[in-house]
Amino acid sequence: MIHSTHAPRDVFSPSVLVLALDYGGTKLSAALLTKGDQTWRACKRVPSPPNHDATYDQTTMLAMAKELLAGSKPDVIGVSFGGPVEVTTGTVHLSHHVPGWENTLLRDQLRQEFGVPAIVDNDANVAALGEWTFGAGQGCATMLYVTVSTGIGGGWILNGEIYRGADGLAGEIGHIVVRPGGAECVCGKRGCLEVEACGPAIARKMRERLKGRAPDDITGEFVAQRARQGDLIAQEVMDEAARILGEGLGAALNLMNPHRIVLGGGVTKSGERYWKILRETARAYAVLPAMRVDIQPAALGDDAPLWGAVALGQSLLDSRSSW
Amino acid sequence: MIHSTHAPRDVFSPSVLVLALDYGGTKLSAALLTKGDQTWRACKRVPSPPNHDATYDQTTMLAMAKELLAGSKPDVIGVSFGGPVEVTTGTVHLSHHVPGWENTLLRDQLRQEFGVPAIVDNDANVAALGEWTFGAGQGCATMLYVTVSTGIGGGWILNGEIYRGADGLAGEIGHIVVRPGGAECVCGKRGCLEVEACGPAIARKMRERLKGRAPDDITGEFVAQRARQGDLIAQEVMDEAARILGEGLGAALNLMNPHRIVLGGGVTKSGERYWKILRETARAYAVLPAMRVDIQPAALGDDAPLWGAVALGQSLLDSRSSW
Repeated sequence: MIHSTHAPRDVFSPSVLVLALDYGGTKLSAALLTKGDQTWRACKRVPSPPNHDATYDQTTMLAMAKELLAGSKPDVIGVSFGGPVEVTTGTVHLSHHVPGWENTLLRDQLRQEFGVPAIVDNDANVAALGEWTFGAGQGCATMLYVTVSTGIGGGWILNGEIYRGADGLAGEIGHIVVRPGGAECVCGKRGCLEVEACGPAIARKMRERLKGRAPDDITGEFVAQRARQGDLIAQEVMDEAARILGEGLGAALNLMNPHRIVLGGGVTKSGERYWKILRETARAYAVLPAMRVDIQPAALGDDAPLWGAVALGQSLLDSRSSW
Repeated sequence: MIHSTHAPRDVFSPSVLVLALDYGGTKLSAALLTKGDQTWRACKRVPSPPNHDATYDQTTMLAMAKELLAGSKPDVIGVSFGGPVEVTTGTVHLSHHVPGWENTLLRDQLRQEFGVPAIVDNDANVAALGEWTFGAGQGCATMLYVTVSTGIGGGWILNGEIYRGADGLAGEIGHIVVRPGGAECVCGKRGCLEVEACGPAIARKMRERLKGRAPDDITGEFVAQRARQGDLIAQEVMDEAARILGEGLGAALNLMNPHRIVLGGGVTKSGERYWKILRETARAYAVLPAMRVDIQPAALGDDAPLWGAVALGQSLLDSRSSW
């Protein structure tokens, strides 16, 4: 690929507009950015009502995008979607949280609606690209992004590009087994990293430890808070979650030896003790002392997919302007 | 990179000679091949005597190479080495089996001796490249090669190149933990894939099951043979080894979703039942039904590193002719 110093599109249109869309399970976000800028021109986030469906998502997102654009036309649309996506066609397989998304030709719908090129990928991959381009992964040749919240997902950046694997399913670190015979996971296996170390797993383990003396609606965040306040049982539960996460990351280190692992998601905000244990465990599980173990907190928070959608849109423009 | 249809070197020297060297722990192999050919022009393999050292390896290999060359000069030297290598400088860190190899500038020594470019990488990476170029991985965009014999090692081919990771240590699938709290591994951890599923692990588990009624020098190969003959205890031991290997491969599938996994090494010659169980287990451990699980036996046997050394040498020539 030959890169000209000035892409033709930039010459004729000095302010290239990127529309970034993030279809999350519990909220919709849209932002408008001038290519090369580091801040939004406009941004809008709307939490989704309970029991919403794909039609609601589609209608609401379209209205948000049009409000942001205020009559102007974007040059490209980058999209993060909370569920598996076939990237070459921009088809959503399904949403894990929102019914009605099955086999939606999202890219083509957006192309038709706005008359511009669009690109769609799943939120873990897009967030990884966001952290690599604008956040905690900048400058790393290889990077694994892992998000630890209600589930555990991941995305790879290898040589500056999203690595998707044979079927677009690479990065499923949440479903490597770390506790054979452990708790039953939504995927049908037992002892997956996700079901042993995500937020709901922490809450479940706390409830088990307290044997009915804990409220049913206890959350991982609450356990983390109690641990920081010195509750010994909460600390033990958090320590174990950190150790298990470190073991899972150790597997990724041994298999792929990435330059950096970036950790996002609510559970990774559990404080210094949590980070110390997960880093120590990952280092102990990395096979050779020479292997680098560089694990950093994500820098973009919940906006990682939105920033990643910008980077994804920009990469689509770049690949086209170099044709 | 721009590829000319005729590389300059090929124009002036229609029969480009590649010298391939394989420094194994128990044998030395050397071969000579004309670029583009699929068979050796000459090949020599010498088993190493017990308690040999690096000086023996160096002297013997040099003599073998000169005998093969018979006065002609190779155009490039590709090298597989049984131990960690710093590829950019061609420096051997150490051999796991042969003393005296510490910090040897092997590439520079060969360059000086033969006056031609040389490239050195570790045997797992080189064998992976061999299987990808000439063997069971042909045509796969992404491939994991795993060898299961006295140890368990691996190498990645991503987008047609060896993927080495940040420190050249990618592919260490033998040291992901599959049985927390399991047997103690040479790496210091417990329950690594290697210590639970390699040849010596199979022999150890058989001895444990037979509680002193087995000879001390029992091998994994012997257990596999007894299993094929219908020995129920041997079958159980082999079945467990196959299951554990399948679990480890499942972790690699979830993390990287490769197009194919190629399995080499003596243990993988344990028969249909072993393969059936390891494939079924890997599929059960792959998170999504859509994820492809394509696990194939290696095609090049013990010659995979030697063929890989040819491919490595050729790739070095190709990258130079396109400067």
